[in-house]
Amino acid sequence: MNLTSDNIAPAHPAVLEALAAANSGPARPYGHDEENARVEALLSDVFEKPVAAFLVTTGTAANALSLAQMTPPWGAVIGHEEAHVMHDECGAPEFFTNGAKIVGAPGLDGKLTTETFGGLLGRDFWTPPTHVTPAALTLSQATEAGTVYRPAEIGALSEIARGRRIRVHMDGARFANAVASTHASPADLTWRSGVEALSFGFTKNGAMAAEAIVLFAEDLIQNLAERRKRGGHTWSKGRFIAAQIAALLEGGLWLDLARSANARAAELALGLEARGLRTAFPVEANEVFVWLPAALHEALKARGAGYYVWTSESIAPERAGGDGEVIARMIASFATTGAEVQTALTEIDAALAVAAPRKRAPRPLGAPLF
Amino acid sequence: MNLTSDNIAPAHPAVLEALAAANSGPARPYGHDEENARVEALLSDVFEKPVAAFLVTTGTAANALSLAQMTPPWGAVIGHEEAHVMHDECGAPEFFTNGAKIVGAPGLDGKLTTETFGGLLGRDFWTPPTHVTPAALTLSQATEAGTVYRPAEIGALSEIARGRRIRVHMDGARFANAVASTHASPADLTWRSGVEALSFGFTKNGAMAAEAIVLFAEDLIQNLAERRKRGGHTWSKGRFIAAQIAALLEGGLWLDLARSANARAAELALGLEARGLRTAFPVEANEVFVWLPAALHEALKARGAGYYVWTSESIAPERAGGDGEVIARMIASFATTGAEVQTALTEIDAALAVAAPRKRAPRPLGAPLF
Amino acid sequence: MNLTSDNIAPAHPAVLEALAAANSGPARPYGHDEENARVEALLSDVFEKPVAAFLVTTGTAANALSLAQMTPPWGAVIGHEEAHVMHDECGAPEFFTNGAKIVGAPGLDGKLTTETFGGLLGRDFWTPPTHVTPAALTLSQATEAGTVYRPAEIGALSEIARGRRIRVHMDGARFANAVASTHASPADLTWRSGVEALSFGFTKNGAMAAEAIVLFAEDLIQNLAERRKRGGHTWSKGRFIAAQIAALLEGGLWLDLARSANARAAELALGLEARGLRTAFPVEANEVFVWLPAALHEALKARGAGYYVWTSESIAPERAGGDGEVIARMIASFATTGAEVQTALTEIDAALAVAAPRKRAPRPLGAPLF
Amino acid sequence: MNLTSDNIAPAHPAVLEALAAANSGPARPYGHDEENARVEALLSDVFEKPVAAFLVTTGTAANALSLAQMTPPWGAVIGHEEAHVMHDECGAPEFFTNGAKIVGAPGLDGKLTTETFGGLLGRDFWTPPTHVTPAALTLSQATEAGTVYRPAEIGALSEIARGRRIRVHMDGARFANAVASTHASPADLTWRSGVEALSFGFTKNGAMAAEAIVLFAEDLIQNLAERRKRGGHTWSKGRFIAAQIAALLEGGLWLDLARSANARAAELALGLEARGLRTAFPVEANEVFVWLPAALHEALKARGAGYYVWTSESIAPERAGGDGEVIARMIASFATTGAEVQTALTEIDAALAVAAPRKRAPRPLGAPLF
Repeated sequence: MNLTSDNIAPAHPAVLEALAAANSGPARPYGHDEENARVEALLSDVFEKPVAAFLVTTGTAANALSLAQMTPPWGAVIGHEEAHVMHDECGAPEFFTNGAKIVGAPGLDGKLTTETFGGLLGRDFWTPPTHVTPAALTLSQATEAGTVYRPAEIGALSEIARGRRIRVHMDGARFANAVASTHASPADLTWRSGVEALSFGFTKNGAMAAEAIVLFAEDLIQNLAERRKRGGHTWSKGRFIAAQIAALLEGGLWLDLARSANARAAELALGLEARGLRTAFPVEANEVFVWLPAALHEALKARGAGYYVWTSESIAPERAGGDGEVIARMIASFATTGAEVQTALTEIDAALAVAAPRKRAPRPLGAPLF
Repeated sequence: MNLTSDNIAPAHPAVLEALAAANSGPARPYGHDEENARVEALLSDVFEKPVAAFLVTTGTAANALSLAQMTPPWGAVIGHEEAHVMHDECGAPEFFTNGAKIVGAPGLDGKLTTETFGGLLGRDFWTPPTHVTPAALTLSQATEAGTVYRPAEIGALSEIARGRRIRVHMDGARFANAVASTHASPADLTWRSGVEALSFGFTKNGAMAAEAIVLFAEDLIQNLAERRKRGGHTWSKGRFIAAQIAALLEGGLWLDLARSANARAAELALGLEARGLRTAFPVEANEVFVWLPAALHEALKARGAGYYVWTSESIAPERAGGDGEVIARMIASFATTGAEVQTALTEIDAALAVAAPRKRAPRPLGAPLF
Repeated sequence: MNLTSDNIAPAHPAVLEALAAANSGPARPYGHDEENARVEALLSDVFEKPVAAFLVTTGTAANALSLAQMTPPWGAVIGHEEAHVMHDECGAPEFFTNGAKIVGAPGLDGKLTTETFGGLLGRDFWTPPTHVTPAALTLSQATEAGTVYRPAEIGALSEIARGRRIRVHMDGARFANAVASTHASPADLTWRSGVEALSFGFTKNGAMAAEAIVLFAEDLIQNLAERRKRGGHTWSKGRFIAAQIAALLEGGLWLDLARSANARAAELALGLEARGLRTAFPVEANEVFVWLPAALHEALKARGAGYYVWTSESIAPERAGGDGEVIARMIASFATTGAEVQTALTEIDAALAVAAPRKRAPRPLGAPLF
Repeated sequence: MNLTSDNIAPAHPAVLEALAAANSGPARPYGHDEENARVEALLSDVFEKPVAAFLVTTGTAANALSLAQMTPPWGAVIGHEEAHVMHDECGAPEFFTNGAKIVGAPGLDGKLTTETFGGLLGRDFWTPPTHVTPAALTLSQATEAGTVYRPAEIGALSEIARGRRIRVHMDGARFANAVASTHASPADLTWRSGVEALSFGFTKNGAMAAEAIVLFAEDLIQNLAERRKRGGHTWSKGRFIAAQIAALLEGGLWLDLARSANARAAELALGLEARGLRTAFPVEANEVFVWLPAALHEALKARGAGYYVWTSESIAPERAGGDGEVIARMIASFATTGAEVQTALTEIDAALAVAAPRKRAPRPLGAPLF
C-alpha cells in the first residue's frame, strides 16, 4: 500500500510516446514551436474560447507566475488558509511577487466561502498605503482537503472579488479531478465563473512534468514571457513540455485518467467506511482523508503502509476525532488500480485485527457515502 | 542549412530510452529517488571526488540558483561583458540574487583575463557600504564566443578571486564541448582550478531539458534545496531529470556527443576559411563565428539559410571587418552530421556565386586553421 | 480632544535644542560622526553592556531592517497576529527580507504566549524545503493593544525560540512606555531575557524622527550597514538623527516623558471607568482602548472628538461588548497634559448627556483600576 | 581645508528656524499635514505647473523610489556609467526595482550624449523576453563630474527616450547648482525638456535631510505612496521634512545658496589654474576636479588637507594626466566662505613650496577660466 501522493506515479505511456514522436529534427526554441501552438489550440477547444497558455513544469512555478501577474508587491493574495500556495511552496509566491502578502482565510473542508472571504475583506486591514491591498483571490481545485468547488460557489466568490477589483486565480493542480467530479464543463468551472487564470496541472494526472498557465483575461498575458524567462522556466526545447500536454488533452485522455483516479478514491472511501472508519472531509476527487484510531495507525505504520498524516484546521467540529486519532491522507493516482485499492483494504483489515478493538460498529457494506 | 543554435536539436535517442526505462512504478518524489542518487555517483566519478548535485531543467535556473548561493544582494557578480548571464537571461541572476549587481568586464574572444578581471577589482567602486562588494566570479565554458578556458587560465583567475574572498562559478552550458576541446579532465577544468560550483549543461548536448548544479564547495549546499523549491524548480517526479543525465553520463556518451559537435564545427570552419572567409574568434568548441561580406549575407538570407547575426564587443582589432560585413554565428550540435556541414558549404558556394566578387583570394584547402 | 495617536505630537523642545547645538561646522558624513558615537555610548549605559546601534528615522525601517538581519527569504517571522509588522507597514518586512513569510499567532490582549507561540511552532508546516523555516520571533513592546510584556514572559518566549534557533526581535516603538510601566530595567526587558535586536523608538516619545536599531547579538551587526544604505536609510548628515536620540537619553528624559504619557493614560482610563465605560485591554502603557456604546460614539464623533476605532481579534471573550459598541483607541503622548485629559473627559460627559441612557451604574471615582 | 563633500556641511540656520516654527501642536501624520501641502504649492510655483511631490530624506531613497516607478523588474535603467545610481547606492536601485538592470553608458565629462545613449540602445541586447527592455533613462544634474546638462541636451536625450517609450528621470542631488549654473528655468531643465520625475535634492544645499520626488507625469503618482511606506520612508511627523524644504524654497533661498556654492567653486578653480594646475572637467557647478601632481598630493595629504581622490573613466584623452598625478575632487557647499577658499589656496601654496618643482609656468591670476 503506497497511497502517499499522486506525484509518486510514473508518467502515462501515451506521454512517453508523444515525447518520442516529438523527438525528430529541429524545432524553433523557447516555445515558438508547433507543439506549443497545438496545445493552445487544444486548450481553446477544452475551454470553448481562445486562450493563451504558458507552459512550465511545476505547479509551484505555474502558481507563483500566475499570481505575480495579478498582484503588485504591495498587494495581498487571499486563499484558503490550508492551500498549497500558503505553506507548501517554500515562499515561491512571495518570491515571484516580490514580497506580496499571502493571506489565509478559514473555511470548512478546505473551501473558502463567501462568508470567510467576505469577512476577511471586511476587516480593517486594507487601507493603503499603510496596509497592503487585496489584489488576487486564489482557489484550489480540487482543494487541499480533496473537496471541489462547484461553478456557483466559484461564481459567488469571484463576484465579491470583482467588486473589489481583485483578480481570480485557480490553482488547478488537480483540475482534471474536479472536472471529473463535478461533471461541469471546464469553461463553467473557470472563466464563466470569473476565473481569469488557471494553473492547469498535468503532472499529477499522467504527465512527466507539465503544467499550463491558461489565461482567460487578455491583459494578463503582458510580460508573462519575461517573468517566465527570468524565473528560469522557459525551456529551449519547449516542444517537450507541449508534447506531454497534447498527449493528455487529445481524445480526452486527461479526463479519463482523472475519472479513474476519482473512482479508485471512491472505492477506497467506501471500503474504509464499511470498516467503520470515518472520512474527515467529503471524498469528492482523488483524495481520501480518513480518521485512524491511534492503534490502527501504529499497526499500519508497523506494516510499512504508505500514507501521509494530515494536520488540518478546517475540520468541521462534528467530524473531529479524539483519543489520539490521526487523519490519514490517501491519494489515488491515474495509475492506481482497483487491485491496489483492494490490497490496501486487505492491509487495513490485517492491521485492524492486531489493533485495539473497534470503537464503533461497522457500517453495512454498500451504504451511501455522501 | 539550419545552424542557428544547438538548442533546436531534438534529444538523443538514449535519453528517451532512459526516460522510458525510468517510467515504471512509484518513486519517491522531489529528488529523493534512486535516479538522483545515481547521477550524484556518476558525477562524482566524472569529477574524481564526491560532489553534490541539484538538478534543474534550464541553464538560466542553474546559473541563477548557483550565483544566488554565492552572493548577497549587496554583492557583485563579475563575468565577461558578453556572457550569457549578463544579457540573455532577462535578469534572472538579479531576480534570484534579490538584486545583486551583475558586472561585466571586457576581454578578447569572450574571455576574461587576469588583467581585465584584476583591473575591474582595482577600480575604486568597491568600498562597502557605499558600494557593493565583489562576491562571485562567473566564467563561461565554452565562452559566448565559442572559445575555451584552459585549466591554467581558470586557475589564475580563481587565484585572484580567492584572494578577495570571491566565489568562483562556471557556466558550463557547453562544458562538455570545452572538455572535448581541451582534453583536460573535468576535475582540472573545475575544482582543481578553483571552481566551486558548475552549471553543467546537458540540454544543448543531447538531453531534453536537464542541467546539473554541481557543487564542489560543501558550504554552498546549504539552503539550495529551499532556493530551488522557492524558484519552482523542484520536480515532483524528479527521476525524469536524473534519468536524462544518467543516460548521457553513462559510458561517456556526453563526451562522444560533444566531440562530434566540435568536429563538425571544425569541418565547417575549415570549409569557410577555404572559401576565403575569416573566422571572428578561434573555433575551439562547437561554434563558428565567421565574417560574411554584406552581399554574401544577403544572398544567404535570401536562400533562407539559418544562422544568427552576432554583435560583439570582444573582437580583436586586427580581426575586425568593415564595409557592412556581419559576423554570422553557426553552431553544430551533437546531432549535426558531416553531410549537413557539406550541404551548408554547398549553400554558401551557391550564395557566393551570386554575391559580389570575393575580396580575398581563397586559401588552399587543408591549410591549418589554428 | 485629539487622542488619535502619539505621532501627531510635535518634538520635545530639548530635541530641537539638540539639533541646533549639533548644527555647527563640518562633521563626518554617513554616521561616522561624534554624535553617533555618543549615542552608542549612552545606549550602552542604558542597557548595561556595550551595544551597537544603527540609527534610522522610522519604526518601519527599524523593524524591517532588523528582521532582514534575522531571517533568510525562506524563513518565517512569527509575531502576534495584530502586531504592527503584520499589517501596518505595507509589506515592508516582506520587502526588506526579500519575501520571507510574516506569520501571526493569536493571543489575548495583544500578547503572544508560550502556548500560542509554541502551538504555532508545533504545527505541521515547517519541514524544509517544502515549507519555510521559523527564523525570527518579534515581540511588540508595548503591544498593539497597549499591554506590556514582563521580563519573565519575554524570557519564556525567548527560551522556546532559542531551542529552535529562532532569533528574537523586539519592536520597541513604545519601548520607553514599557520600561516606565514595568519598572524593569532596559537590560532585563531585552538581552537578559533573550532579545537580540531592538527597534528602540524615539519618534513617538519626543523625537522628530529617530529610531535606533540596538543590537545585543554581535553577529547581527554584519552587513547591516549595507542593508541600511541599500534601503536608502543612511543619512549623509547623520549627526541630526543622533542628536535627537542623545537629547532624549541624556538625563533620562526618555523615561520621564514615557512616565508622563503613561500617567495621562492612567488618568484617562480612571475617568472613563468612573463613567461606567469598560476598557477592552488592560491599560499598561500610554494607550487606552475603551468600549463606547454606539450612541456615545456617534455623539463624540459629531463633536469632532479625535480617536481611532479599533478592530481587534485579541479580545478576551468576557470583555467583548455588543449592540454596536466600538472600541475606541485613545493615546496619550509625552506632550499630553493633565488638562487635556480633563478636557477629554468633559467632552465625553457632554456626549454622554446627549447619548442613550447609561447602561451601567458609574463606578465610584478613585476605585482601583488594575 | 576640508572640501571633501557638500554633505559634511551643517544645515542652514533658516532650516532649523523652520523646524522650530513647525514644532507646535498636533499635526496630521504621514504627510497629510499643512507643511506638505505648502511644499507642493511652492514646488508648483518653481516649476510653473502643478506637480505632485513625495518627500523623503535621502537622495538614495528619492532615486530608487523614482526609478522603481518607471521600470519593471525586467527593465533596464540607463544612465552615465559614473552616475551615483550606478555605484554609490549599494544597489538601492536594484533593491527598489526588484532587480532591474542598471546599465551604464560612457560619455565625456560625466555626461551622456545622444551618441552614447543612442548607441547603447542600438546594441543587440534588447529583445524581450530573452533580454531586459530599456525602461528608464536617468540623468544626473549636476553630473558626478560637476558638469551640467543644458535644456537642449536634456531635450535631445529625452526625445530618443520617448521614441522608445523610455521614461526620463533626473537625479537632482545638485539640481539647485545646475539651475544656478545654467540660468535656465527649473521648468526648462525638467519637464519642458522631457523629464518626468525629479529627485530634487535639498540636503546638500542647506537642509538637514530632505529630498523631494517631484513628479511631472501624472501616471507616475500611482502607488508611490505604497512604495514609500514599504521602503520605510514615510515619516509619521512628516511636517519636519516639509518644513525644511519650505524654508529653502521660500524667497528663493535654495537658489541663493546654490549660487554661493557655485561661486566659491569658481573662485577655487580660478586659484588652482592660476597656480598652473589643470582641472579635469569643466567647472560648471560647485565641484572642482583638479589634477594634482603626485608630490603636491603627498604634501597636501601630509598637511591633512580634506579632499577626495577621484577615479574616472570619462576624462577626455587630451586632459588625461600622467606620472602619478591624481584627480582631486574639491566641493564647495552653501556654507563655504570665500575666506575658506582663500585658506585652501594658501594651503596649496604651502604644499607647492615643499612639493617637486612645478611642471608648468603659473598662469596670470585673473585670466578667464572658461
